Parts: sequence; C-alpha cells; structure tokens
Amino acid sequence: MNTFRPVCWFCGETYEIEPIYTCRRCKGTLDIQYDYKQVFSQAYFQPLASAAGNEIGRFRELLPVWPNQRMITLGEGGTPLIRTNNLFNTGNNQSLFLKLESVNPTLAFKDRPLAVAMTAAVQFGLNEVVCASTGNTGVAAAAYAARAGLRCAIYVPEGTPEEKRSAMEQYGAVLHTVKGHYSDAYRVAEEMAAARQAFNLTSTYMNPYAVEGNKTVAYELAFQLGKVPDWIIVPIGAGPLLSGIYKGFKEMKLAGFTDKLPRMAGVQAEGCAPIVRAFRDEEIDVQPWSDPAQTIASGIADPLITYPADGTRTLSVIRESEGIALAIADEELIRYRRLLAEREGVLAELSSVTAVAAAAQMQQTGLLEQSATIISIVTGHGLKDMSAAINHTKGSV
Amino acid sequence: MNTFRPVCWFCGETYEIEPIYTCRRCKGTLDIQYDYKQVFSQAYFQPLASAAGNEIGRFRELLPVWPNQRMITLGEGGTPLIRTNNLFNTGNNQSLFLKLESVNPTLAFKDRPLAVAMTAAVQFGLNEVVCASTGNTGVAAAAYAARAGLRCAIYVPEGTPEEKRSAMEQYGAVLHTVKGHYSDAYRVAEEMAAARQAFNLTSTYMNPYAVEGNKTVAYELAFQLGKVPDWIIVPIGAGPLLSGIYKGFKEMKLAGFTDKLPRMAGVQAEGCAPIVRAFRDEEIDVQPWSDPAQTIASGIADPLITYPADGTRTLSVIRESEGIALAIADEELIRYRRLLAEREGVLAELSSVTAVAAAAQMQQTGLLEQSATIISIVTGHGLKDMSAAINHTKGSV
Ligand SMILES: [Zn+2]
Ligand SMILES: [Zn+2]
Repeated sequence: MNTFRPVCWFCGETYEIEPIYTCRRCKGTLDIQYDYKQVFSQAYFQPLASAAGNEIGRFRELLPVWPNQRMITLGEGGTPLIRTNNLFNTGNNQSLFLKLESVNPTLAFKDRPLAVAMTAAVQFGLNEVVCASTGNTGVAAAAYAARAGLRCAIYVPEGTPEEKRSAMEQYGAVLHTVKGHYSDAYRVAEEMAAARQAFNLTSTYMNPYAVEGNKTVAYELAFQLGKVPDWIIVPIGAGPLLSGIYKGFKEMKLAGFTDKLPRMAGVQAEGCAPIVRAFRDEEIDVQPWSDPAQTIASGIADPLITYPADGTRTLSVIRESEGIALAIADEELIRYRRLLAEREGVLAELSSVTAVAAAAQMQQTGLLEQSATIISIVTGHGLKDMSAAINHTKGSV
Repeated sequence: MNTFRPVCWFCGETYEIEPIYTCRRCKGTLDIQYDYKQVFSQAYFQPLASAAGNEIGRFRELLPVWPNQRMITLGEGGTPLIRTNNLFNTGNNQSLFLKLESVNPTLAFKDRPLAVAMTAAVQFGLNEVVCASTGNTGVAAAAYAARAGLRCAIYVPEGTPEEKRSAMEQYGAVLHTVKGHYSDAYRVAEEMAAARQAFNLTSTYMNPYAVEGNKTVAYELAFQLGKVPDWIIVPIGAGPLLSGIYKGFKEMKLAGFTDKLPRMAGVQAEGCAPIVRAFRDEEIDVQPWSDPAQTIASGIADPLITYPADGTRTLSVIRESEGIALAIADEELIRYRRLLAEREGVLAELSSVTAVAAAAQMQQTGLLEQSATIISIVTGHGLKDMSAAINHTKGSV
C-alpha cells in the first residue's frame, strides 16, 4: 500500500503514482496527498526533532518516495538559520531570522525539490529528464541528474547568461536554446518531455513530486526555532516554495506537533508582480503580467504567461494563512543586498533580497506584532550571480 | 580557570590567551592545547554524536573560546558527506566519500577557522581584523567580520581576480593592493596588524585560534560515518586543514570515543609542491618552492616563501599518521573536475579536485587496503571560480 497519491489541487480528482503534471479533467496542477492517518499513527515529528543528521531523507514518509527507493541526494537541506544582529530594528522585541537556502549543494533552495523529483524519476524507471530554466532550476536539475546518472536536457531562452549556461553544461546537461522568452522554453520542454518520455522538472507547480521537497524547509524551521514563527517571508515567482512551506506547517499541526500556523508573506519585484497585483486588487484569480518584466530580480520575474492559475494557487495559500503579498523596487534590492552583506555577512542573490527588504517594509508599516518572530528565506547565494552584482554595483541599473 | 592556552608547536613554550602568532623564544608557530582531563571529565563526544543541530559551536569546549563568549556564526559546518556512486572503482570493496566543505556559508572550508578566529577577535576586544589573501580566506574573513561588526582590511597581491576582489568588497572589507606576490601581501598584513592592533587572520598556521576550527571536520566525519575512515585526503597549501583534522581525531581517541586514527594524504599541484617534494626526498624540513608556481590550482599554490616551517609542521603530521604526500598534474585536475561534475553532480574548485584525483591515483597504485573507506575533502565550490573554469574549459590552459 502506498501512502501517497497525486490529487488535483483544483477539482480533487485523484491519480495513480505516475509521471503526471496536470489534471486530465480540468487541466489544473496537482498536489500530493498522504494517508496521514497511517504516517502519523506513531509520533512522527517528535523523534525527528532531536535526530542527528540533516538530509531531507529523514522526512521520507512525508515525501512521494516509495519505501525502498534509494533517495538521490547531494546533501541538500539542513541549512543554517541565523538571527540578524545589525540589520533589523529590534524595537518591539521583534526578531528577524534568515534561513540560508543559499547554503545548499547548488547554492539555492531548488536542491530540495530537485532531489525529490530526481528520486521520483528513478522510481518511475525513466532515463531522461528535461526542464525549462533560465537559472537555478536548470543548475540544480543538471547536478541531480548527474548524481542519478540520468540524461538531462535543458531548454533555455535566448539571452540566458553565459555563467548559468556554463554551470549547467559543466554538470553534463545538454542545453537547447529556444527563441523567445521563458514561456517559449517552457512550452518546448513540455512537448519534448511528452515526445521523449522524459520527466519534466520545470519549476512552478508543474511537477507535483518536486513541489513536495519544499515542505522540508518548514520541518527544519520548527526544529531549529523550537517553535512556529509568526511570519515567513518568501520570494515568489509562481510560488511553489511558499505553498510547500505552508503545507509543511499544516502537516505538523495535523500531527499534533504544534497548534500554530505561520502567516505567509509572498514578495515579488515591482517590475513583475502579478500575484501582488491580484492581492491588492482583491481578485481571486491572478492574471498574467503582460508588460515586459522589468526588474533585476530575474529569479522571480515570472509573468505567469500561459499558467496564471499557478499564481492563483499561491495567492489562495497566502490568504488562507492570513498573510500578505508585497512588491519591492529594484533600488531597494540593491540597497538591501549591500546592507545584508555588510551588516550580517550574508551575500544573497538579488531575488532573495526581496524577502529581507520586505521584512523591513513590514516592520515600518506596522504589520508585525510585538515580539513577532519573522523568517526571511534567502533562496539563493549571491556568489552565484556575481557578474550581475558587479554590473549593478557599477551603476548599470 | 581557562581550559586552553597557546603553546609553541616547535619548542613547547606556553603563552597566555592573547592575540599572539609566533613563539617569542623560537619564532615557531603555535598550537592551542587543552586541559583534556577537565573537558573529558564527563563523556564528551557520545552525547554530541546524536545531538541535533549542525553548528560548530556544539564543540565549543574544544575550541579556544571562553565559556560565556557568544560565538560569531554564519551557520558554518554540518556539511554533507556523500558517497560516490559512479566516479570511483568500487573493486576491493573500497568506498570513496566526499566531504562537501563547498557547502558552507562562503562556499569553502575557511568558514570554520574564520568563525573561531572572529569569535576570538571579539573575545580580545579588538575592533579590526586584517589578512593577506588571494581568495577564499579573504572572502570568509570579510563575511565574518561583517557578521561580527568589525572593520576588515585585506591585503591582496596584484593580479587577484576581479571576481574575488568584488566578493570581499561586497561584504564591506577594505582592499589594499600590494605590489608583488602573496608573500609580499603576507608581510604587509603582518606589519599592519602589529601597527594597528588588529587581529591577523592570514591563513597558514599564523593564527593559532583559527586553526582550531578545522578540527570540527574530524568530529563531523566520525559522527556521519559512524566510524573513523581509513584515509582522509586533503588538498594542502601550507596544510593547517590537514593538521586540524588529524588533531580532531586524536582528541576523539584521547576521549575514548574511538581507538583508531586515520591516515592522512596531503595533495598538492605538481606545479607547486614543496611538501610533496620533501616527502619524496625523505627530508624532515620543507624548503620553499623557489620556481614560479605553475598551476591552475591557485587556492593551494603556496610556495611557502618565508614560512617553510609551516610545511615542515604539516609533513610531520602526515608522517605521524603513516600517510603520504602526492602531487597532481593540471591536466588531471581539469579531467577530474569534469568527471566529478558529470558523474556525481559535484562542482568543485580546481584546488579541491586534487583530493579526488589523488583518491583515484592511490587506488590505481595499490595504496588503498581492501574494504578501505576513503574521504576526499572538497574544500571549495566550483561555482565560486566559474570564470577560471570557463577559461580552462575553453582551452586557455
Ligand atoms: Zn482537476
Ligand atoms: Zn618556540
């Protein structure tokens, strides 16, 4: 008996454990649901909270992995949680912690979902994986495919920086340049996955197995803090990281490990903020961002062209958590990137800095309760986009 | 009562806990010695082996840190240990593991010694730190100084790549370019530290507090493996990492936690291998490498000009462990960098690759016992020296 299965997030249709990406009935994205009664029949989280070892595999009963399946791992997870000393105004007894997802094998949070997805690919007996990517996802996909011994084809839009292309190629992936934007690469990857019977690892909610890896951030946060934080601030493109973290806390609540849930803040860049726009306008459905994306935070600049429902899904999670969505201007990103490095010793990718700038903005606007504990997720390492940073420092923005 | 004090490694003279770098009697480098009887009066390692949490601070009784001193940390340590699947011939039941020191806050093992050194700087009430560096040490020093709120001046030789300079500057360090080579920067840093009452963090054995941070690699290895490995292969410039790891295992033996010690293999690049030369020639004293260093492994290309005794110290540790010293050609580094990325999903700095190429060489030459467990230390992340890698891939070597 398997303890998990894919379920349509929108209409509830259930599916077999197979390489599947969208609901055959309504085309909605999928979610993995577990037989929690079986998983939690014994105390689940309590022994893990004091267990040694960092690998996300210690949470395998809550990952879509068959019991005897060897996990594909590069040692992802177990990332540092450090308290800011000098960056954040600690008036009102509020404290800001940084969860350094930058300290992962390929220097970004993507290693968690890719480890799970690659394990699923092996589980399904597939020999090849594909993805569309301009950056972190492609680098992680290439690394984990190498580790698993699978072929990896990555569809990158024109204009993808040489630095990122080179990293993917060094891990042995085959790159295909697609004319047009990310959405064009997205579509080609989808077609090629179907044509070649390859597993599609493209980010967003497309791969329901991958998304589950993000939950492990929640488990670690609860263990590291010894409590559930009040706010978790997450940089979002489509937003699967935010949803995954919230789902992880809901599971801990369901297991009786905690009775509190955090409020989720999703942060975008002002130059490409479809989810924030819908939140401000009190819309239920997110619409694609039809203007050209204008921001230096390329990692989260997702206009959601052709898959706006991904934004709708994330927005509903934010609302369920009584959270907020907010946008940050590029000038603030440059300023906070420098402050974060100079005052805390943390060099973050520009996209990640949104979560830190947002913490300050939320404090200034009185959104944070007294004595609140706030987590900003530092999603990627600044040493990974040094050429971007050097250009911006020199005033090219 | 303090449980530790600096002792001359060469003549045994003891000193107070103070900012001190060399023996006033014989000019030798120093070592920190502990009152092990006091530290180990209770079972020390056993409870830590199953403790949750990764920070090196959990080993603080074996670090030169006063009991109430707040540790300066960016979450260093707790790095992954992964077994190679596809790179290493597993005949004779030999297994090769990679300790990914690349997955540290500034992407290199240096974060461990710098965390300890920066804590010592705060402990001594100093406001400024200095170091001479061409790369990883400077980046780590800048990050930890930022975290501690201390001024940081870094003396870099001419020709230090813009990528590394920029990283140090982004963390807020002040860079001073010194005419000449690394040894010139080394001398200027030494003078400036004395003149400005700044703490000198220059790598090699100069700062006895820093060196202690390297021991934590040993503790983690024993816990992660559940045993003491047969061989530990370490890329070495002057070699404090190798010495530190061996010292850590000796402490575990002293505490009764294990009765075995590993054999240590020190690896240099053929184009700059003063320690290997002395090992092969069966010399006790290492001589400086007077030819120009000719290797792409810049991180370990240390000719030991003006401080050859550092090499002598490392060589004596290698001999004590019944280990070896060996050198790798640049072509092998390029080949193994690619193999490591394509077959295991691990992208390593060129200097780090020496440890992996050495494992293969040791296996081929029959140096490894049957069923041996071998650890190669991956000292730095390949995404940190991408521009070097891109150039080499394109055939500029
Ligand atoms: Zn449906
Ligand atoms: Zn002496």
